Amino acid sequence: MRQLSLDALNPTFQKVQYAVRGELAIKAELLRDKLKEPNHGLPFDKVISSNIGNPQQKGLDQPPITFTRQVAALMEWPELAKLAPNVFPQDVIDRAEELSAEIGSVGAYSHSQGVPFIRKSVAKFIEGISSERDGYPADPANIFLTGGASAGVSLLINMLINSPKAGILIPIPQYPLYTASLAQHQGVPIPYYLDESNGWSTSVPSIEEAIAESHKEGIVPKGLVIINPGNPTGALIDEQTQEKLVQLCEKYSLVLLADEVYQANLHQPETHPFTSFKKVVSKLQSPVPLVSFHSISKGVSGECGRRGGYFECTNFSEEIIALLYKMVSVGLCPPLAGQIGVDSMVRPPQPGSPSYPLWKKETDTIHAALASRTKVMAERLNTLPGVSCVDSPGALYLYPQIKLSKKARDAAQVAGKETDALYALALLDETGICVVPGSGFGQKEGEWHYRLTCLCPGVDDYVGKLESFHLKWVEKYGQE
Amino acid sequence: MRQLSLDALNPTFQKVQYAVRGELAIKAELLRDKLKEPNHGLPFDKVISSNIGNPQQKGLDQPPITFTRQVAALMEWPELAKLAPNVFPQDVIDRAEELSAEIGSVGAYSHSQGVPFIRKSVAKFIEGISSERDGYPADPANIFLTGGASAGVSLLINMLINSPKAGILIPIPQYPLYTASLAQHQGVPIPYYLDESNGWSTSVPSIEEAIAESHKEGIVPKGLVIINPGNPTGALIDEQTQEKLVQLCEKYSLVLLADEVYQANLHQPETHPFTSFKKVVSKLQSPVPLVSFHSISKGVSGECGRRGGYFECTNFSEEIIALLYKMVSVGLCPPLAGQIGVDSMVRPPQPGSPSYPLWKKETDTIHAALASRTKVMAERLNTLPGVSCVDSPGALYLYPQIKLSKKARDAAQVAGKETDALYALALLDETGICVVPGSGFGQKEGEWHYRLTCLCPGVDDYVGKLESFHLKWVEKYGQE
Repeated sequence: MRQLSLDALNPTFQKVQYAVRGELAIKAELLRDKLKEPNHGLPFDKVISSNIGNPQQKGLDQPPITFTRQVAALMEWPELAKLAPNVFPQDVIDRAEELSAEIGSVGAYSHSQGVPFIRKSVAKFIEGISSERDGYPADPANIFLTGGASAGVSLLINMLINSPKAGILIPIPQYPLYTASLAQHQGVPIPYYLDESNGWSTSVPSIEEAIAESHKEGIVPKGLVIINPGNPTGALIDEQTQEKLVQLCEKYSLVLLADEVYQANLHQPETHPFTSFKKVVSKLQSPVPLVSFHSISKGVSGECGRRGGYFECTNFSEEIIALLYKMVSVGLCPPLAGQIGVDSMVRPPQPGSPSYPLWKKETDTIHAALASRTKVMAERLNTLPGVSCVDSPGALYLYPQIKLSKKARDAAQVAGKETDALYALALLDETGICVVPGSGFGQKEGEWHYRLTCLCPGVDDYVGKLESFHLKWVEKYGQE
Repeated sequence: MRQLSLDALNPTFQKVQYAVRGELAIKAELLRDKLKEPNHGLPFDKVISSNIGNPQQKGLDQPPITFTRQVAALMEWPELAKLAPNVFPQDVIDRAEELSAEIGSVGAYSHSQGVPFIRKSVAKFIEGISSERDGYPADPANIFLTGGASAGVSLLINMLINSPKAGILIPIPQYPLYTASLAQHQGVPIPYYLDESNGWSTSVPSIEEAIAESHKEGIVPKGLVIINPGNPTGALIDEQTQEKLVQLCEKYSLVLLADEVYQANLHQPETHPFTSFKKVVSKLQSPVPLVSFHSISKGVSGECGRRGGYFECTNFSEEIIALLYKMVSVGLCPPLAGQIGVDSMVRPPQPGSPSYPLWKKETDTIHAALASRTKVMAERLNTLPGVSCVDSPGALYLYPQIKLSKKARDAAQVAGKETDALYALALLDETGICVVPGSGFGQKEGEWHYRLTCLCPGVDDYVGKLESFHLKWVEKYGQE
């Protein structure tokens, strides 16, 4: 028989790239294994995975919200409420009983769109009766619970790409899920550039330019991806710009794909608040088809491993909702652990309830730590020669620009790597810190960046390592 | 702006069909809602979802394995081991500690292929050191943990379909995941027929015929799907036939996709044992690329809602494994609740451990109940006029054939439905029992079947309803 070879497989698979778990991350895992050897000979004693927003991972150890986990433990083994009655606060017991009455066992498939009761809770969260969200109605029938936001994004991109000439507008820099999904589903990425000199702001004219360019090449733009707060940039879009973006989608008949998974990660909420696109579309009474994605992996929840999230469709016909339902039904249902995680996120303990004080303390601590680390890291990175870094007002990342010299570029060429990948590999080899080179997110020709998360404990030590590495790099390769 | 309409969307989405959660299941949900109304006027007081193998759902209420849930509860909230020390058996505490040391928090993303430690446990399970499996080596590097088997099947089909002329051989009747995935990924289903008159056996010549037919149409067969134990048929393939199937894959350079998710659901293990394709391929030292799928949703585990499973690749090159890794990394990782569910499935309590007696009792009860219900249901269905039913030796289903008269076929034509769909809809309307018509799985022209699960409690009452419905149907529509 013929051996199975790469060229006998779907060519789209080879085009997919996902740098967040790419070469750097794979090498980091090998180094982590090597550290377990007694005489490993490495110049560091731990690997710090700053390549991915994974707050609860070993070494970062952001603690989970106790309320979420107490509810989850009771859902796993409901008898605990009787066997250890004094261990759980009453509101946790009540919540688990309420969910059990609706769901039954977390070991059963739920409705393919997600447990109806939890979708109702999500709708109330979006409406904002018990939170700070929109003040406009939301319909549980238009909400799909998902296994994290990624699953929903991939599905929607797959749905919109109806020919090899169909494209989706994506920001540069972008979260590589978008280019990866487009490669897999054979759509054309239509890049538009964010304005680094203006705090990574989104410029409506630059999107119109990208649309005009795509038209010239016979590409049909089908959707516009907006990541707000930005990934990797951390930027927040102001409401006036959001309105213009919605109008732009109207003008060009685009589906607006709003990646809003970092909506709760706001470090400067007074000056950089979050406004949902659902609110803007509702306020404008716009007919723009909108999909808003949210997740329990980010925010203060940080429950990446549960795989939970949702998307809400606005201005979608019933027949398209039915089509989406059919597609998700083939995968049966999103993980129940993720679904009950969504419930905890959208219905946190309220003032006066037994779990509220601890919940408040835990969430305040996470918010404050992230805001303070982000500020310190941006400030100190900005003092380094050849480094400039927008101080992100949101999300979990910084995306510093680094000037890389001719000597470094030549060295990268010899190594057959992008210059920022060479920088990131050297950083990993010398400090154990794993970041993702800007080439994985996209950047202007001749510019170099990397993305790092602001999740590390011990920020002084951490930034110290970044600093001394960078200074040694400059010593070796120079600045021009 | 233009409204978003179906014809602007990916045409493959409209071709996807998934009857297990299709028209019947949607109607069943509506009826379930209607039952909550005080004067619902329905001729039944509960809806029984026999359309899907979902053992723990409400109304079926197969209890979860206590050990699995105790471990899961401790993983959710590890402090419980201290707060309620006497509630958990020592082996549960030890297991949770062991897993925590390897995984850290279940709220963190794991390795995209699944926690390495759990993949090692899966490899040992496959090797059979502590179970009855293969006796041949398995490599954790070739094992991918998944969110249920479906996610893996869809990925592999997507990978194999490298042109619109690429096809996959699928059994008829089949589990509709296969046709749905092929429709989504634009591959050609190449049907081969199972032999109902011989207990739904798999015939090698019928597969060769199907290959020859496909060649005539310019289709390139890339893979062969075998579902063993069968879904919807429940049939087990004997080892001699398995060897021939492997040789057939060698002859035609096919990837063997072995859906083995029901490997633990054996009702007549003495006469109808399960042999894995991994064992057969290993024994023959065959070079056939094999993917074997397994799941925690079936077996005695029945943990559908956790979304856990795995696939093992055999005879795949390192570069193809790397390609698969890259693709799954875009989705970050399988749900941790599913992953630890896999661990519990492949490492159950052993004799002598504190949890063993309860585990043994629980699993024996589930096995015995399923075997006995399957037997009773098959026997009684076989006594009905115009019904013949193979007594399934495995899986969770029966797939009875029903003769449907000219009058019934005419009525179906008027209603614009398949005749077996008309039968199933009437069954639902009159009894509240939801089954899936054979047209959803495939059947020979002019034959009619339906699939029902053997999961209902109160089998006498349940079969009684099927019987009286069928007799009334025959009275109304006649037999010829």
